[in-house]
Amino acid sequence: MTIFGRNRESSSRSAEFPPHAQREAARARLLWEQGVSPALSRPLSTALRKASRLPAVLLSPALAAFLAASLLLPGCAASPRHENLSASVADVRDFPQSLETLASLYGRPEQGRAWSNGPLRGAETVLRSHEDARLDMARFRRSFFEPWDSTALDSEAVQGLVDELERGPEERGFASNMHPWSEAAWRKMADNADLPKLKRVMRRGLPLRAVTVRATDLRAAPSMEPRFSAAQGAGRGWPFDLFQYSRLHAGSPLAVYHKTRDGAWLLVQSSAAWGWVRAEDAASAGAEFRSRWRKAPLCAFVHDGVGLKFKALGSSGSPAIRPGSYLASADIGTVLPMPRDGEVLLPMRGLDGEAYAVTASFADWEAPSRRSPELYDQLSRPAVRMPLLLTPGNVARVGDRMMGQPYGWGGLYGNRDCSAMMRDLFAPFGIGLPRNSSKQAMAGERVSLEGLSAEGKEKALFEKARPFRTLIWMPGHIGLYAGQWQGRAAMFHNMWGVRLSLAGGEEGRLVIGRAVLTGLRPGEERADVDEERLLIERVKAFTVLGE
Amino acid sequence: MTIFGRNRESSSRSAEFPPHAQREAARARLLWEQGVSPALSRPLSTALRKASRLPAVLLSPALAAFLAASLLLPGCAASPRHENLSASVADVRDFPQSLETLASLYGRPEQGRAWSNGPLRGAETVLRSHEDARLDMARFRRSFFEPWDSTALDSEAVQGLVDELERGPEERGFASNMHPWSEAAWRKMADNADLPKLKRVMRRGLPLRAVTVRATDLRAAPSMEPRFSAAQGAGRGWPFDLFQYSRLHAGSPLAVYHKTRDGAWLLVQSSAAWGWVRAEDAASAGAEFRSRWRKAPLCAFVHDGVGLKFKALGSSGSPAIRPGSYLASADIGTVLPMPRDGEVLLPMRGLDGEAYAVTASFADWEAPSRRSPELYDQLSRPAVRMPLLLTPGNVARVGDRMMGQPYGWGGLYGNRDCSAMMRDLFAPFGIGLPRNSSKQAMAGERVSLEGLSAEGKEKALFEKARPFRTLIWMPGHIGLYAGQWQGRAAMFHNMWGVRLSLAGGEEGRLVIGRAVLTGLRPGEERADVDEERLLIERVKAFTVLGE
Repeated sequence: MTIFGRNRESSSRSAEFPPHAQREAARARLLWEQGVSPALSRPLSTALRKASRLPAVLLSPALAAFLAASLLLPGCAASPRHENLSASVADVRDFPQSLETLASLYGRPEQGRAWSNGPLRGAETVLRSHEDARLDMARFRRSFFEPWDSTALDSEAVQGLVDELERGPEERGFASNMHPWSEAAWRKMADNADLPKLKRVMRRGLPLRAVTVRATDLRAAPSMEPRFSAAQGAGRGWPFDLFQYSRLHAGSPLAVYHKTRDGAWLLVQSSAAWGWVRAEDAASAGAEFRSRWRKAPLCAFVHDGVGLKFKALGSSGSPAIRPGSYLASADIGTVLPMPRDGEVLLPMRGLDGEAYAVTASFADWEAPSRRSPELYDQLSRPAVRMPLLLTPGNVARVGDRMMGQPYGWGGLYGNRDCSAMMRDLFAPFGIGLPRNSSKQAMAGERVSLEGLSAEGKEKALFEKARPFRTLIWMPGHIGLYAGQWQGRAAMFHNMWGVRLSLAGGEEGRLVIGRAVLTGLRPGEERADVDEERLLIERVKAFTVLGE
Repeated sequence: MTIFGRNRESSSRSAEFPPHAQREAARARLLWEQGVSPALSRPLSTALRKASRLPAVLLSPALAAFLAASLLLPGCAASPRHENLSASVADVRDFPQSLETLASLYGRPEQGRAWSNGPLRGAETVLRSHEDARLDMARFRRSFFEPWDSTALDSEAVQGLVDELERGPEERGFASNMHPWSEAAWRKMADNADLPKLKRVMRRGLPLRAVTVRATDLRAAPSMEPRFSAAQGAGRGWPFDLFQYSRLHAGSPLAVYHKTRDGAWLLVQSSAAWGWVRAEDAASAGAEFRSRWRKAPLCAFVHDGVGLKFKALGSSGSPAIRPGSYLASADIGTVLPMPRDGEVLLPMRGLDGEAYAVTASFADWEAPSRRSPELYDQLSRPAVRMPLLLTPGNVARVGDRMMGQPYGWGGLYGNRDCSAMMRDLFAPFGIGLPRNSSKQAMAGERVSLEGLSAEGKEKALFEKARPFRTLIWMPGHIGLYAGQWQGRAAMFHNMWGVRLSLAGGEEGRLVIGRAVLTGLRPGEERADVDEERLLIERVKAFTVLGE
């Protein structure tokens, strides 16, 4: 990779904080979102980790017996069950698990103040004028294509990735076998990352433009091996792999600055964040490819798991190649050029590592006939031309397709976490959100709720937040404000769990683990949920998108 | 896919058992390997599952409170810590964590009986004649290419995959959010699998030949979402994803019989087992490709994480394509054609879904100069021409590269479980092992140890088992017999853990979680390990490979 030049440009992930603060913030985000109070569980986990890190030869049978007796046998103090998996919270049954239900109430007098750019027509109320939507869309494109326009790396973001690999033995956390990362495995990964070369790149580096050819994981380090902050514990062990930054959709523009020695991982800027992606999952995007990509109007997928199949190579077609072969899958929030209805462009990786623009059609989907009313129902199609008209009904229909889906930390298993769900939900409307929740909270008109009582916060939401285009934010968590349900603020969010206070001062979690519609006090009916830990207590702001 | 014809042919996974028995065996294998006695933990987990499966509307606050009080708060009875992560077993420090140390002792009188096909020369002793190795290699090739030679599907294996998707709601287990698989998610996956068409294929189906273009996962169902037998518990929750069958190396021949509606998953026969693979990770292998593949001598990789980079397309080269681009990674046990030294053939997926044979060289590796002694040291190279000479030293050097590596259930995270490690270890020697441990135990001269005392078993090993080419087997677990260490049988194996008897009759696990060299009684020094559960008590046979 040829790499020259340098300037200051911020990534979406790292603009605000120096790398150390960023790391700490990421950790705090994790602990906060999962509701762990680190101080409480740290002494035990430190003791466990220290014991397990002793060289085996020092672990005399006597010491082993002591450890067994003091920490490991299932005494109450040492062995809380952190995850409560069998209960639910009242909100999940009290609120309809359907955004469409709330959308249909839009504008009714008992729902409080309504906002529109035209007549109030329930779910069909237009929330954003065409003119404003055009401006949103222009901003969306700038952010989407930023990795192809940026001219130098964000040294703070890259320093964060360097720091990640330069962690000392005590800071590396736990691997997939629930043991601390071994020195050998860590060293192999860090050596492969070729940090001396990366540091030269940081001084002067020009990127190679590239694009993802399938949905792939953006990692904090060049490895699929996870890194957990602890072997287990509420919000700490699996699935909270701290190396997992994000899932990237197929067709995401990238800027590539560096690669591992074995060639298997690329250090990239994506519109979501900086990180490492598998080299097989990306391809070089030459000038011609990029120009073709930018020319066609963009579409966004509004269904998950849409198979894309080969139709033609390039605009001229390529009769030698048999059509119908499977290429990649697209999900809600995947954005691709759509030269004409029912056809998208998809980047494919050639044998030479270059990206080729392929025309693809949708597997297992038949275009509605001209006479069918579905012709006029955009959302029944796999993908819609952007921007989709912002109405409560359209937001609800796309959102309801994600309702109940499993929570996926950083996009693990291809699932969504809280901020990924918001990002994917608003993409079809041409509203581009950053990847992380605190940045999302600054992506519109942000109204602080700090200092208000719980009641005051809810009242402020009722009066000033605009349903179906407002995000409710607390540090580490975010969701959509969907209006009122029986006098309570309704939030659509993908959440891991509700914090529990266990006996002995330990933290636990009532695991929700999916996208739900709740109020702002889920779990308030439970004796083991502290009132001062309810979501509403942690809510700090709401943000009206597009203002 | 065009599919005609049918005959009876067995896969490596399913020849012996009807599908139901196979499933039960797989479950028993899991429980056994992890040391879970299902009867003990089932009542609690059933109660928890049933509670969590109640429709939310039926979960009244009173019932919720009852559940909270009876099951969920961290009382001792309901919340054992199953995994002991901070202790070790004496064997891990008492045995050298080095096969080379044992190999160097080979043939010494105090080591007991030695076996060779020539003079006894310690680690360099030849354990297998060239003639026998040629026969091994012919068998290896037959098994490796079987998916390209088979003419019909194994209906029992495929029925097992159908049964997997037809599980009733009570049998589906738990998803990545620690909750039971939701009806909606299961139905979406099963619908996508297109079972009616698959059942037609089972009546008459001819396969499409294909090949993996990168290391990929072979799954029991067309989804990356895991399926756990329980949300948590020793040997039950993460990482024991029952949908994960195996990791397949790049360049594995496949027979494709069916695909999902969205095109994203293929139902395949591989030399490891039948299952589902991601369509992007495979390519059609036409007659010309296959013939080219079979003509070149095979090599096996003897290092993990070797990057392969593009050198030329086909034998004629292709000057239009820029060399050096990263293609895929190879690991110990990856088998590819090697037309000449330092170059391998790798299948790449063209835009049309067809496989192209690409000549690849090794990233980050320089060929030793002619005068360097390394020239003569095959094992310093990334890959060796098969078969590698079977000596204790060669087995030890390859094995030691996996020593200490994390345990990876079914190949999760690209790591190895017990049987995958044996399969990859012996591939370079041209000794092809099936994927699962009970089949591996039948891949040579099997000597039953049933009915013998622990001492009798060890004595039989000393007298009849041939170090460095004998597998020690118990149901659900397998490892290499590496001779004696201080009078005790030494076993090289990748193990999850040692079973612990916890207070209250619960099962627990002391997690080893990596490849180790131990005796047959790891954990015998611990008060919480029952003598009748030691490995040696469960050992049922040993198998001398190649006899």
